[in-house]
Amino acid sequence: MNAQRVIAELKELRALTGDAQGAQRVAFTPMWRTARTWLREKLRDLPVEVHEDAAGNLWATLPGADPRALVVGSHLDSVPGGGWLDGALGVLTGLELLRQWEARAGGRPPFTLRLVDWADEEGARFGRSVFGSSACSGSLDLEEARGLVDAQGVPLAEALRECGIDLERVRESGHELASAAAYLELHIEQGPVLLDREQPLGAVLGTFGVERHEVTFRGQAAHAGSTPMARRRDAFRAAAWMGEEIYRIAERGGGVCTIGSCTTQPGIVTSVVEACRITLDQRHLDPTALAAMLAEARAASARFAAAARVEVAWERLLAIPPRLFHPHLIDLCDAAIRETCGAAHRLPSGPLHDAAEVARAGVPTGMIFVQSLHGLSHSRLEDTREEHLALAVEAFGRLADKALAWIGAR
Amino acid sequence: MNAQRVIAELKELRALTGDAQGAQRVAFTPMWRTARTWLREKLRDLPVEVHEDAAGNLWATLPGADPRALVVGSHLDSVPGGGWLDGALGVLTGLELLRQWEARAGGRPPFTLRLVDWADEEGARFGRSVFGSSACSGSLDLEEARGLVDAQGVPLAEALRECGIDLERVRESGHELASAAAYLELHIEQGPVLLDREQPLGAVLGTFGVERHEVTFRGQAAHAGSTPMARRRDAFRAAAWMGEEIYRIAERGGGVCTIGSCTTQPGIVTSVVEACRITLDQRHLDPTALAAMLAEARAASARFAAAARVEVAWERLLAIPPRLFHPHLIDLCDAAIRETCGAAHRLPSGPLHDAAEVARAGVPTGMIFVQSLHGLSHSRLEDTREEHLALAVEAFGRLADKALAWIGAR
Repeated sequence: MNAQRVIAELKELRALTGDAQGAQRVAFTPMWRTARTWLREKLRDLPVEVHEDAAGNLWATLPGADPRALVVGSHLDSVPGGGWLDGALGVLTGLELLRQWEARAGGRPPFTLRLVDWADEEGARFGRSVFGSSACSGSLDLEEARGLVDAQGVPLAEALRECGIDLERVRESGHELASAAAYLELHIEQGPVLLDREQPLGAVLGTFGVERHEVTFRGQAAHAGSTPMARRRDAFRAAAWMGEEIYRIAERGGGVCTIGSCTTQPGIVTSVVEACRITLDQRHLDPTALAAMLAEARAASARFAAAARVEVAWERLLAIPPRLFHPHLIDLCDAAIRETCGAAHRLPSGPLHDAAEVARAGVPTGMIFVQSLHGLSHSRLEDTREEHLALAVEAFGRLADKALAWIGAR
Repeated sequence: MNAQRVIAELKELRALTGDAQGAQRVAFTPMWRTARTWLREKLRDLPVEVHEDAAGNLWATLPGADPRALVVGSHLDSVPGGGWLDGALGVLTGLELLRQWEARAGGRPPFTLRLVDWADEEGARFGRSVFGSSACSGSLDLEEARGLVDAQGVPLAEALRECGIDLERVRESGHELASAAAYLELHIEQGPVLLDREQPLGAVLGTFGVERHEVTFRGQAAHAGSTPMARRRDAFRAAAWMGEEIYRIAERGGGVCTIGSCTTQPGIVTSVVEACRITLDQRHLDPTALAAMLAEARAASARFAAAARVEVAWERLLAIPPRLFHPHLIDLCDAAIRETCGAAHRLPSGPLHDAAEVARAGVPTGMIFVQSLHGLSHSRLEDTREEHLALAVEAFGRLADKALAWIGAR
C-alpha cells in the first residue's frame, strides 16, 4: 500500500472540489459529479469494471479467482464546508487496495475485490443520511424519500433524475451485495476518543442506537415579582434538573445523553416559565442498555415534574437500533491495528456510517477509525496527522489481507 | 363611603371600555380617552377643579381649610385585555372619597383633597410603565422616552401630541406634588399572597427593587453521538444548575428570583449546547439583601461555569432600587385594615406602582392591597370577591381619615 499516494490524491481531490470554506462535494450537485469523474479517471488505469447502480452508488470490480467479493469503500460526498478526510479517506484507500492487488497478484486476487463509493452518506441536502447504502441494504423508506425536498424546494426525486437515477428503482441496487462476503471501511473518527487516548487507530464495534425525544414540561406562567417561590409551578426548574441528571444516567449506563435544545414559553424576563421544551438524544451500543437509559430518563422526568408540580410529556423524534459489526472482523481490525501501531483500542461509533447499513443487510462488516485532531468533524478544520493517515492505510491493507484469508477459511 | 356605588361604577366602566377579552383602556388610545371623559362626567357633580397636567395626569381638587393636600389615586389605563380592577379600583375609590368629604364636611375638608388618575401606568403600548407618575416625580428619562415607539412604529411623542401633551414638557407636571402632604393608593394585589393567607386586605411595605440580567454560558458545540460525556463543555449543564440555585438564593435572601427565558445555540438535537442564555430577574424590598442575592447568583454562576468548564458573562438589563413607603403611613394602613377586617398583613409589592414614584418624589406614601382571586393579573380573569371590594373601600375611607389627622398633627 502506497500511503503517500493516497495522501497526495486526497490533497488533489481537496484542491479540485474544495474551497477556503472546506470540501464542497454535496451529493447530487455538480461538484460531487466532478469528484466522481475524477475518481473514474483514477480507475481507468486499472482492469476494473466500473458502473453506478440504481441508487447512484459507484462500484469498481476487480474480478478474483472466486466470485465471492470483499467489498471496501466509503463516500466521496461531503457536507458543505466539510473536511478533506470524512469519506474520501476510505474511498481513496480502497482505490489503493485495488491497485495493490492488481500489481501483487498479476491482477487476479483470490476473491473478487470491489470498491464502492456510496451516494449521499451525509444527507446534507435532503436531510436523509446514508441514502445510497440504505437503498442498497433495503432499509430506505421510499414513502418518506418521496417527500424530501432541499432548501430551495427541489424534490429529491428531481435531483436524482438529473443524475440519471430513478427514485422508484433505487432499492434495485440491493443485488450489488448478493456476492459480498465481507465489507470493510476506513473512516476518520468524528469525535475525540482516539485523540484523548493518544491512539492513532481504533477498531469500531458498531454504531450507537439512538433514542431521540422532545420532552415538554408544563407548569403555570406567573408574575416574576408577585409570585412567592413556594407557590410557583416552574417548568424551567423541572427541565433544568434534567441537565445534570442525564450525566448521571450516561455515567451509569455507559452511553451518551445530550440535551441539545431548550426553549421556554412565554419566555419573557418577567414571568415564571409555563412551558419548557428540551430535546434529549440518547445513544448506546447495547439495545438493552439504551432502553434502560431511556427508562431512567423518563422516570427522572416524572419525578422532577412531580417535585415542581408541573406536567411532563414525551414525544419520540427518532429511534435507531444499534448496529453491531461482525465479532471476528472486529478482532481482525484489532489485530491489523496492533501489528501496525503496537496497540489498539475498540470503540463504538456515535455517528451513523454506511458500514452500519451494510451490516444491517447481513454482510459481515468491519471498520477502522483513524484519530481526528481536535475531535472536529463536518468542519474545514477537520484534520489528521499525516503519519496517522499513513498508519491507517497500512493497517487497512493488513486488514484486507486478513479478511481475504478469513473468507477463504469459511 | 358607599362601597356599592364604587362597585357599580367599576362595572359601568367595564361595560363602557371593555369587551369579551377584558379591559381595553390602553393609555393614549381612544378607549382610554373614553374612560377619562366618563370620569370627568362623574366629577361634574362635585365642587372640584379638574385639569390634566403637562404629563396627561388628571387631577380633581376639592379645596380644604388648609392648602396642604392629601392626594389619592391610581390609574384608569389598562393593558390590552386587562382586568376590571387593576387601577380603576383606586381611582373610583378616590372619587368616592371626594364625594364623601364633600357631603360630610359641607364641601370643605380640613385639608385639600386631590384625586389623581395617573397617565399610562401600564406602559402597555410603549413599554415604559409608570409614565405619568415618573414624569411627575422627575425620574422619567426624557432621552429614553424620545426613542420609544409602539408596535406600529408610532413614536411616543406623536401619540402624546394627539392627546395634547408635549413630551418635552411632561416633567413640568412635577409642581402638582408641591402641596402634597401624603399620597394614598388602593390597588388589587397582582399576586396570590393575600389569597394564600386568606386576608382580604394588606398594608404594602413598598415596591421591590429589581436586578435584571442576561446570563450567558459559553462552552463548545460537539457531536451528540461522538463526544464522551467527560469531555463536554456543555453550556446547558451550567445554566441548568442555576435553575435550582435561584430557589436556594431566594430562600436564604427572602426575595424572589426568576429565570424566565432560556435559549440555546446551536440549539439542535445532535449537538452539545455551545451557548446558553438565561434571563435572571431578582427582587427584594431591602437593597442590601437584593445586592447579596445578586452577588450569590454571580458567585454560583462562576462556580457552575468552572465545574462545567465553560465561560459565563453577565449583562445588566435593568436595575431599580426598592421604594419604601412611609413607616407611619404603613402603620395607619395596618390600623385601618384591622379596624375593618379584624386582622391585617404587611407585604411588599413585586410589581411597580405609581405610589412608588410618588414616594420617590419625597411625598409620604401609603398603599393598601385587596386580595386577588386566583392571584391573576393582567388578565380578563382578574377578579376580587365583592365583599372584599366593599371592605377595601371602607378601609381606604378609614385610612384617609387617619392620614388627614396625621397631616394635622405634624
